[in-house]
Amino acid sequence: MATEPEAGVDRLILFSDGVMAIAITLLILPLTEIEPARGATLADVAAENWGALFAFALSFAVIANYWTIHHAIFRPVRRQNSPLVLLNMLWLAAIVFLPFPTSLIEHELDGGFATLYICNLLAISALNLLIDNYLLHHPELTDGQAIDETREHVMGSAFSVAALVIALIISFFSAAVGVWALLLLFPAQVIAGRVSRKSPLARLK
Amino acid sequence: MATEPEAGVDRLILFSDGVMAIAITLLILPLTEIEPARGATLADVAAENWGALFAFALSFAVIANYWTIHHAIFRPVRRQNSPLVLLNMLWLAAIVFLPFPTSLIEHELDGGFATLYICNLLAISALNLLIDNYLLHHPELTDGQAIDETREHVMGSAFSVAALVIALIISFFSAAVGVWALLLLFPAQVIAGRVSRKSPLARLK
Amino acid sequence: MATEPEAGVDRLILFSDGVMAIAITLLILPLTEIEPARGATLADVAAENWGALFAFALSFAVIANYWTIHHAIFRPVRRQNSPLVLLNMLWLAAIVFLPFPTSLIEHELDGGFATLYICNLLAISALNLLIDNYLLHHPELTDGQAIDETREHVMGSAFSVAALVIALIISFFSAAVGVWALLLLFPAQVIAGRVSRKSPLARLK
Amino acid sequence: MATEPEAGVDRLILFSDGVMAIAITLLILPLTEIEPARGATLADVAAENWGALFAFALSFAVIANYWTIHHAIFRPVRRQNSPLVLLNMLWLAAIVFLPFPTSLIEHELDGGFATLYICNLLAISALNLLIDNYLLHHPELTDGQAIDETREHVMGSAFSVAALVIALIISFFSAAVGVWALLLLFPAQVIAGRVSRKSPLARLK
Repeated sequence: MATEPEAGVDRLILFSDGVMAIAITLLILPLTEIEPARGATLADVAAENWGALFAFALSFAVIANYWTIHHAIFRPVRRQNSPLVLLNMLWLAAIVFLPFPTSLIEHELDGGFATLYICNLLAISALNLLIDNYLLHHPELTDGQAIDETREHVMGSAFSVAALVIALIISFFSAAVGVWALLLLFPAQVIAGRVSRKSPLARLK
Repeated sequence: MATEPEAGVDRLILFSDGVMAIAITLLILPLTEIEPARGATLADVAAENWGALFAFALSFAVIANYWTIHHAIFRPVRRQNSPLVLLNMLWLAAIVFLPFPTSLIEHELDGGFATLYICNLLAISALNLLIDNYLLHHPELTDGQAIDETREHVMGSAFSVAALVIALIISFFSAAVGVWALLLLFPAQVIAGRVSRKSPLARLK
Repeated sequence: MATEPEAGVDRLILFSDGVMAIAITLLILPLTEIEPARGATLADVAAENWGALFAFALSFAVIANYWTIHHAIFRPVRRQNSPLVLLNMLWLAAIVFLPFPTSLIEHELDGGFATLYICNLLAISALNLLIDNYLLHHPELTDGQAIDETREHVMGSAFSVAALVIALIISFFSAAVGVWALLLLFPAQVIAGRVSRKSPLARLK
Repeated sequence: MATEPEAGVDRLILFSDGVMAIAITLLILPLTEIEPARGATLADVAAENWGALFAFALSFAVIANYWTIHHAIFRPVRRQNSPLVLLNMLWLAAIVFLPFPTSLIEHELDGGFATLYICNLLAISALNLLIDNYLLHHPELTDGQAIDETREHVMGSAFSVAALVIALIISFFSAAVGVWALLLLFPAQVIAGRVSRKSPLARLK
């Protein structure tokens, strides 16, 4: 990474939004390459490609969800430095990688493909946790009033990591059940939100 | 979705514009994969691929039109909250999905493919209506002066939904006529605009 | 198009930039699908695909050039209205369409493909001229001081249209010479710039 | 290029970010086209496609790195003129081109493909050097206080060019060693940063 000092974070956020917007839109490409057999009906196409349709819906929801998390994490951030840029680039690399395991699980869940998919999500959530933690220890990069907010995000990311580790362990026994266990991610975030809001320092702003 | 409180809406709009810009541009990809047979002329290529050319033009017009509607709906919006983000993400999912039915109707209208295409548009317009309605009941997310404007958008979206339901019913009888009936969308919007402007509360700004 | 009144033009410009950025980047996709034969060297790959390499370079230069023209035209624009949005969407449709004739001329210039390519550029330049002209007659959409600038752009677009009409006519006799005649576009712009700067009202700012 | 006078640089930076965001995301496309054989495990897929995985990781790191350099170079820039736009467009063309040699080295390093890849990076770094140098001689385009910063970027770009020339020469003898020599880029930037910070005029801001 370049040797720049702290600087405004606007371009980093715009670049990240661009990458996420493209990654979420590219998910439709495998579906556009489906050529229905002569005389096939919509029901035939759906029956043959339900795996691809499910994988599209799952990964769309996952990236949309990580976008809202990225948005929440970076809201108080005002300046960037090289470690934050590096962590964010690793985070983006994990987002951009997601269409690859997505296309693998369209074909097959077993053989380790579901595990790769869950590991990819785990990498994104772990990087969330690292970014949250980095910001907590570098309040000079933020607007200075949002420490409670960042602490709440740490808890949210930690709950996500825990939910993903559970899904990962399940996937070693049954790939399909492991993928369904990803739905644990959504209650994990809601619980994390409730727990941290009950704390006495909860959000003022 | 993450547990963030209300916040500025700039990043949500930028992300949405990015997604729409990519979805509208990806529509050309099926056309770039055409390889003309040796000795074929432009007339041959056009004759063989008029379905793809028509589908490109139709979906481009549709996404461009929904972009202007999204622009109009979000103009008075100043803050976001979790339900608005969720509704907008569902809206984007329906936009990103559009290239899939587009590529299906390039091959074949019958067999339910035209119906899927129209249902996709119906989903987008219905989400428009839900977003309009949500904003009407949450004026605290807007700049407070645009209630008439939002009310007009509700009418515009309702007219679109009605035009699409008509096209959908027609498509059950004849897929081709159903697709042509989509052109009802454009007069529906013009009429909606006229009706709401005649109302005594019509736009001041 | 939706029935919105005049409004700030920022989102329209951002959306246009997104579309152009994607269209210019998608040009590389056909090249990434080249799979060199076993034992082939770079010289072999280049010899087999020089048409694709040339078409990539030409269309990249064309879109980059039209981006600078769009930037120049929209610099003084402050507000949008429905006709301007419609003209801009047609302009974007012509930009998004360009990868299609680009991929056709990668295979073959004759048979009308070079003519389609030149017609596509002609459509973009003609829309430039229409947008310039529309702004000239609607100074209320601009910052009010840039009429001379817009008049200069009208002349630049008119020169481009003229150069493209010449290239189009040449392409009827020889497709290859017609494509080379596109290089007339660059001196046309330089001449247009010189002519309009010599006029007594030339740019003050 | 159009004949515009100096103007704000925001749209140029946004357009560049868009292009880089798309180029970095498109790198995943070749991986999404992998269809594992029936009964293949993740280990089989990884073993067959390690070249594609390595090429993805390498090119992602390369573009992410060039993004941070572009960010650093353009931080003090406030205005643009035609030569700067032209240099930036050439720079973007070299970035957009990168997925092509990336897809070639996925198949084969020998036969000149690794050399093409390194030449592509050399073109980007050489254009960095030209842009830095241009800004150094046109301080009127910058905010006027960042000459030392720009001088430091000249040194960083020069070190990158030197590291790439070494990798290029190595690649003539062994393509694989030449690619590994690209890792010299990272220490080159760190050294460049240290050297220029020790100079008495080092950054104040």
